[in-house]
Formats: sequence, C-alpha cells, structure tokens
Amino acid sequence: MSLLVVGTVAFDAIETPFGKTDKIIGGAATYISLAASYFTGNINLVSVVGDDFPAATIKDLNRHGINTDGLQVKKGQKSFFWSGRYHNDMNTRDTLDTQLNVLLDFDPVIPEAYQSCEMLMLGNLMPQIQKKVIERLHNRPKLIVMDTMNFWMDTQMASLMETLAMVDVLTINDAEARQLSGEYSLVKAAQKIIGMGPQMLIIKKGEHGALLFNKDQVFFAPALPLEDVFDPTGAGDTFAGGFIGHLARTRDISFDNMKRAIIFGSAMASFCVEKFGTERIIGLNQEEVDDRVQEFVDLVQFDITLV
Amino acid sequence: MSLLVVGTVAFDAIETPFGKTDKIIGGAATYISLAASYFTGNINLVSVVGDDFPAATIKDLNRHGINTDGLQVKKGQKSFFWSGRYHNDMNTRDTLDTQLNVLLDFDPVIPEAYQSCEMLMLGNLMPQIQKKVIERLHNRPKLIVMDTMNFWMDTQMASLMETLAMVDVLTINDAEARQLSGEYSLVKAAQKIIGMGPQMLIIKKGEHGALLFNKDQVFFAPALPLEDVFDPTGAGDTFAGGFIGHLARTRDISFDNMKRAIIFGSAMASFCVEKFGTERIIGLNQEEVDDRVQEFVDLVQFDITLV
Repeated sequence: MSLLVVGTVAFDAIETPFGKTDKIIGGAATYISLAASYFTGNINLVSVVGDDFPAATIKDLNRHGINTDGLQVKKGQKSFFWSGRYHNDMNTRDTLDTQLNVLLDFDPVIPEAYQSCEMLMLGNLMPQIQKKVIERLHNRPKLIVMDTMNFWMDTQMASLMETLAMVDVLTINDAEARQLSGEYSLVKAAQKIIGMGPQMLIIKKGEHGALLFNKDQVFFAPALPLEDVFDPTGAGDTFAGGFIGHLARTRDISFDNMKRAIIFGSAMASFCVEKFGTERIIGLNQEEVDDRVQEFVDLVQFDITLV
Repeated sequence: MSLLVVGTVAFDAIETPFGKTDKIIGGAATYISLAASYFTGNINLVSVVGDDFPAATIKDLNRHGINTDGLQVKKGQKSFFWSGRYHNDMNTRDTLDTQLNVLLDFDPVIPEAYQSCEMLMLGNLMPQIQKKVIERLHNRPKLIVMDTMNFWMDTQMASLMETLAMVDVLTINDAEARQLSGEYSLVKAAQKIIGMGPQMLIIKKGEHGALLFNKDQVFFAPALPLEDVFDPTGAGDTFAGGFIGHLARTRDISFDNMKRAIIFGSAMASFCVEKFGTERIIGLNQEEVDDRVQEFVDLVQFDITLV
C-alpha cells in the first residue's frame, strides 16, 4: 500500500518557556511523512519549497523512505516560514510571523508514479489546494484523511465545506470542532461534522488525548503524561503521520484498526514534543517506538469483564 | 469489608447554564456513600446536619444500605449550605454563598459499631477533622483515602500536610496537584506529592478524565464523552464513592484493582453530571451501572500485542 502525503514543508522559528530556535525544519507534511515512515514504506510527498531549503534535509526524508519527486523546489523563491511563541501552559501560542512565500501560488502537481497511491493524507493547507489534489488523482484513494485549522474556518468556510464533503476522515482540535459545528459538546459536534461528509472524525485534545468518532462509536486515546512538554510544534501532524502510517501498513480501515492507529499516532506525538521541531522523530529505532506503544498499553489497559 | 465514610451532608443551591435549583441535597459524604452503595453494603457514615435536614433523605440513605448512626443531627442548628454558579464551560464556578452552620464545631464521633471498618474514605473537610477521625479509630484501616481542596492549601497547609502523611491515597484535581507540589507537570507533581506521605495519588481532571499514580506506575481513565454535562456538582465525590466502593467490595488494594476501581468511579461520575445534585445517582439499577461500565470498556479498549 502506498501513501500520498500533501502539505507544507517549511521553516519554523519557535520560542517556548524552555528555549528558542533559529530557523529549523518544520511543515505539516514533514512531520506527517517522518512519523508515517516508522510504520510503512513507499511514502510519496507532494509539497513546495524555495531554493533556500537544505538539500541535506531532503536527503534525510529520502533516508526515511520518503519519495520527494513531488517536492517542487522553486528557484529564486523562499520556503514557507512560520514563527511562534508558546505561553507557559504550552497549550496556547502567539504567531509572531508568517511568510507564505512559495505557498502563495502552490500548484500541487502529482507525479505520474504517485497515481497508484491507495491512501491520501492531506496536511493542513488551503482547502482549495486540498480539493485540487483529490481531483487530480485518476482513481479515488481507498482512504482520504484531511487535517485543517480554524484559520480556514474563519476565512474560507465555503471552500472548506466543499473539500470536507470529499474526504473520509477529518482531524481537528477540540476548539475547531466546536467552531465548525457550533456545538460545545464534542459528542454533538462530532455528529454534526460527520453529517458534513467525513465518515470519521478525530478530535485532537493535545495533552488531554484524542477522540475518534464514527456515526455510532467513539474511542478515546490519552496523551502520555510526560515530565515535560518541551515543544508542541508538529505534535498534531506527527499524530496524523503515525495514524495514517499504521493504516497504510495494515491496509485495514475498520474502526478497530483505526483505534490501533490512534494509539500509534499518540505514541509518535509523545516523542515529537520531547525536543524542538523534528529533532526527536528523526532516527528513532523500532525498539524505542515499540517501548513507547507499550507505555500506552500499560497506561490505559485494565481488565474488567462484565457478564 | 465495611467502609467508613466521613464528610459533609448538606444543602446546595446550584445554577448552571441549563437551570437553577432551590436548596437540594448535597455534601461530599452524601455523594460518596450513594455511589459506593452500588458496589458494597455495610457503609457507615459519620457527618453532621441541623434539624432542618429532611428525615426522608436520611431514610433514602438507609435504603441504599448506608448506616447513619454516625450522622449527628444538631437540634436548633442549620445544616451546611453551599451555593454556586457554573460558567458556560461547566469547568469553572463561582461560590455565591457558604454557610458553615453545624460544620463550625463539628466533632466527628465514631460509633463503637464503626470501629471495625476496614476502609476509610475521608471526604473533603477541614484537615484537622480528617486527622481526628484517623486518631479516633482503634485500629488503622487497611486503606485510607482522602479528598481535599485548594481552600485548605491556601489556609491550613501545615495541618493539611500532617493529615496527608497519615493516608494511603489522596484525590485532588489537576490545579490542586499543581498548587500542592509547585510543579506544572502532573508527572512531577505526582512524584512530589507521593513523597509527602500517600503511596497513591489520583488526579481528577474533570471532563479530561483521571490519572492514578504510584511511585512507579501510572494509569489513565477518560471521562465519558457526554452529549451534555448538566451539573458537575458532586462528580468528584461520586467518583471517589465508586472507587472506594469497588475496593471495599473486592478487598483488594493492588494497583491493578485500583485501575478497575477508577473505571467504576468514572462510570458513577458520568451518571452524576447528567442531572442536578444526587438525582441521577439515587435509585440506579445494576443493569444501568453495568451498561455504563461497558461503555468505558468500549471507549478505551484496543487490541495491540507487541512481541
């Protein structure tokens, strides 16, 4: 099973209560692809960067089994740049700077070799571009997962709703679920959003875990209680990467397998927040990943049998 | 196994976004005892009320298998009264009125017949009174669980620390864990608090579930995602009641059994918030309780086996 990942590949500059970075590698598709690479091979990336983007990083992605033929490198242009500062609670942040640069006229070209991809992960991007990607695939993938954010709800709701109607799984955070649905209760919000198109909704609650809903069922996965959250940047994308990576490996999109996928996603996200940027999710070994997944099993499993 | 429950039995008046009550029955020990009654018999209550407290409510407690010989009824005095208003998010509230009344000079007398109790649940009360209860028991119970709140941390920290050193399990919410430990990370907070005396700490996170820590292990139980939280009053006490009730029934205080106890407590709390006050946790039947516990099993159980 091959996986198509579309989203930003970018530079970030991050300030947290624990420290500050210069420009480091970021972008939704970067985190998604890296996290997915621990579960599946044959990951195909579509994105755009400027010629300021380091070739060494592209090689890092390739070493993780990520095909970058669909990563456009725009001569004389600059990569997308975001800069933000986290507050002391690490749950809220201020955007200090956003430079769209190459994203301004990003046209997502799908290389012919990617056309056979059976799963599609649409990282957070303008909803029109996400839609264009779906339209440019000759065959509809077996599963389309879409991430988005409040900014598109504020500025491009009509376009967002069109794209939403075309996907299978939506991932958003709790505040966004409330905004999109107009419901405070996440149970009611989920049912409304499922009525907008996707059969499944994942609500990410950061340090409070994640909920998976379909029309009839709900599953909850906690976040791992950590001694310190060092940098939350990319945690949601890393979660999505582990999630879609497990689904691509197993080729099973049942609710029960999505539960497992959410645990794998949560495990990857728990690595992500331990260091700045992508630092912690590059070069993990299988034993580290397995041990972390086991921590989740130990964290939530209990033995109650009702007759 | 018999259970001793000490705490307030009182009147509340509650305002939520969904409505408003006149004086209704409240009090930590009321919620604890009622919730525990679904799991164990032989519940022995120590508390104090005024002669304004309805005899019919005391009969309700008796019908739930709760022995009220230790419930002092003070002639010519009024019961403890609390009034509060919840904000729209249902997570924060303002206290509108507190009338201590009979609590002002509460002397917790332990009836001789209660002396054989093997488990003690200390509901939120002045720490000196909680300590007095422990000292008045001829034999130390097999397990002492203590609830407390930020008010005692603000006003009587020294006394709180003395009592804390005498108990096995402490239950507090996340903000209180941070206040008591001076640590923002709940993992670090838990380790500091366990260093203060109790071998176990339960951190209640309301709609975000609960964490159980001992020195080496951690377990997480979610709250049930509900369509509406109608009235959170008493949810923490109801949780504690389900928790101690299951432990009293099984006479097993291992970490694995405490995990189960936390799920039973969470299930009971999920009933509590569905209606005002104690309305929902009076007169439940076993099938309703079992079904609710099964919802928790379905909510969090997944099947990952690592080799």
